[in-house]
Amino acid sequence: MTGLTSKSKAAKSKLVSPRRTIQPEERSHEVDHPSSQLAMFGPDQPLRLDCGVDLAPFQIAYQTYGELNADKSNAILVCHALTGDQHVANPHPVTGKPGWWETLVGPGRPLDPSRYFIICSNVIGGCMGSTGPASLNPATGKAFGLDFPIITIPDMVRAQAMLIDKLGIDTLFAVVGGSMGGMQVLQWTAAYAQRVFSALPIACATRHSAQNIAFHELGRQAVMADPDWDHGRYADKGIHPHRGLAVARMAAHITYLSDAALHRKFGRRMQDRELPTFSFDADFQVESYLRYQGSSFVERFDANSYLYLTRAMDYFDIAADHDGALAQAFRGTKTRFCVVSFTSDWLFPTAESRALVHALNASNARVSFAEIETDKGHDAFLLDVPEFFDIASAFLDSAGHARGLTAQGE
Amino acid sequence: MTGLTSKSKAAKSKLVSPRRTIQPEERSHEVDHPSSQLAMFGPDQPLRLDCGVDLAPFQIAYQTYGELNADKSNAILVCHALTGDQHVANPHPVTGKPGWWETLVGPGRPLDPSRYFIICSNVIGGCMGSTGPASLNPATGKAFGLDFPIITIPDMVRAQAMLIDKLGIDTLFAVVGGSMGGMQVLQWTAAYAQRVFSALPIACATRHSAQNIAFHELGRQAVMADPDWDHGRYADKGIHPHRGLAVARMAAHITYLSDAALHRKFGRRMQDRELPTFSFDADFQVESYLRYQGSSFVERFDANSYLYLTRAMDYFDIAADHDGALAQAFRGTKTRFCVVSFTSDWLFPTAESRALVHALNASNARVSFAEIETDKGHDAFLLDVPEFFDIASAFLDSAGHARGLTAQGE
Repeated sequence: MTGLTSKSKAAKSKLVSPRRTIQPEERSHEVDHPSSQLAMFGPDQPLRLDCGVDLAPFQIAYQTYGELNADKSNAILVCHALTGDQHVANPHPVTGKPGWWETLVGPGRPLDPSRYFIICSNVIGGCMGSTGPASLNPATGKAFGLDFPIITIPDMVRAQAMLIDKLGIDTLFAVVGGSMGGMQVLQWTAAYAQRVFSALPIACATRHSAQNIAFHELGRQAVMADPDWDHGRYADKGIHPHRGLAVARMAAHITYLSDAALHRKFGRRMQDRELPTFSFDADFQVESYLRYQGSSFVERFDANSYLYLTRAMDYFDIAADHDGALAQAFRGTKTRFCVVSFTSDWLFPTAESRALVHALNASNARVSFAEIETDKGHDAFLLDVPEFFDIASAFLDSAGHARGLTAQGE
Repeated sequence: MTGLTSKSKAAKSKLVSPRRTIQPEERSHEVDHPSSQLAMFGPDQPLRLDCGVDLAPFQIAYQTYGELNADKSNAILVCHALTGDQHVANPHPVTGKPGWWETLVGPGRPLDPSRYFIICSNVIGGCMGSTGPASLNPATGKAFGLDFPIITIPDMVRAQAMLIDKLGIDTLFAVVGGSMGGMQVLQWTAAYAQRVFSALPIACATRHSAQNIAFHELGRQAVMADPDWDHGRYADKGIHPHRGLAVARMAAHITYLSDAALHRKFGRRMQDRELPTFSFDADFQVESYLRYQGSSFVERFDANSYLYLTRAMDYFDIAADHDGALAQAFRGTKTRFCVVSFTSDWLFPTAESRALVHALNASNARVSFAEIETDKGHDAFLLDVPEFFDIASAFLDSAGHARGLTAQGE
């Protein structure tokens, strides 16, 4: 039903409770030998990067759920966010936790594998099996580290297009993603309009704001400040800058929530105590929560990958690639858009989505827009927000009707 | 005119351009031998701390500007923020930069030394001459480090009250401060209502929010993640965790600005170039700005002090000290309040000031409230915001009239 491949089924069988201690080898094993399907691109199929480098060979790790129909019209590409990966709707091979978007993708969900053929690939530059800075550099036999070329959102999308070609799919029924995933959705519609029937960019923007660049730079500086980072060459020594990466994650995590959500979840409540300890212990629940977010993240993510992917987001600016005119990027598009934002998202506030919608309107694009009322902040796109699911379902149903797709059993 | 003492005049003479390289000894020298006036409290005058410790001996470093009048009715206490110090209106003895609040304090300014006797002391736990974790522990002959007891906002105010006693002042004409300084203002009015004629709390709150605790915890974790922090014992080795502290400062600095201010100041503009370098260089202006904020801060501030002062802010909760009823804290107060907030301050948003004003109203306090429209964020209280100066002047003039103060020359 969920379309797990035999390889990922095997991965599933070795999964244990999320509370176990994860060994560093488990994360690093996934880098070159992912528990996923794998598309290999040889020396004759280089990935042309924006920085001018031709990356070859390279590999893309991906998961699929459901079956491609006979006329190949039911394929949905899910694009993951900064710290996501291809394991959208199956347990994570390193942490054992549920797939990161099982709220949206799965039986009875808006993206139901019984109707759609759902693909999600690890982005180029990632650390879960697609080629990235943690991968072995064939030229040296060691991890790339900072020898990996800088990648961009358009590069990620170019690699995905090569994967979609390899899968024999011409036009995607939908491209769906939130945050950095939403940026990829927009890049798909700008670069490959004719290959995208419908697009669902969520909680994102057409360019990264100065404040967001600032938060990313803070995270990168935290990683680079860790002596174990060692100018990106930590893998050669079998170490990992987990302290710096944990600090970076803590900073990012605050931006994913909202003041109201933090207040509702934690307020000023103490952790397992009534009175302050008058120490630097995690007296407040929000402190121990944050420490946990930092320490659990480093078990599954590579520090250099974090640098590269944040950099890609910083560079993203669709208008800049079209002489500063955003509407120009979408001129003549036939893609159906549904743009979604969340009221309490201060990382990608609604104003950013509105600017996108205005540009789409100026391009005479077919676009609907929903701002969803929630106090859950940027993270809302990953959480159980029924109004969001209803909108996603209705949009895909309508697009499916236009595309001539019928629900199973209809 | 500015009331600099001979000691601080001497300090002034050795000041050089802000762009020079600051030697670590310059900062550490100020810890025990400040370029300030100094109040010493001996073993018989302990500071009773909230954590249960009696701190003795201890010292408070302070600056004064102007002259105390004959009936001692014109004294204004300025309370500094997290990374401020007593050098409110004279060049900084370490950095050579202008005093941190010369926009508000000085000839022709709302706090004019020709009218008022202005006092500003380094908080207890600070690193510019008042006893703190960087000070020599007389019991060991080494820096206190983490052996320094945890201090609170009420502790800071208790120490200030002892200084005010020593200066022979019974009632302060005004207590003024922003951010952590505003917390001290509120604590003064709650703990010593009869000694505060008027109070000007700016851009602050009666308690620290979960999000603010989270940002502080992030900063502390960044410091503690630096191996040079060495569990707080870095001074023994003559080192300083400058990388971790710089990261902490970068995180804090983002919260002091606003998305709009960052957009106006930097947008996505590149630093001295037109095109991206496709590297981890500071391509964007906002990146180099942030790096500069981090690196310049560590030249003048002690890492352990940063831990202690952020902790004090986290613990602050006036209502909790009054059975959860904020209005109870101000019951029967005769102090005149002017509460000021800034529209784009997301660290201490207007809602926090409104909650304070409601509590003051419920206590039948005399209170005025101004929310000032600006895109400058939390930092607005330190910047050139004429509307804020007008409000501060009008409030102090009115309070001065009620207090029987006359302007010089009247």
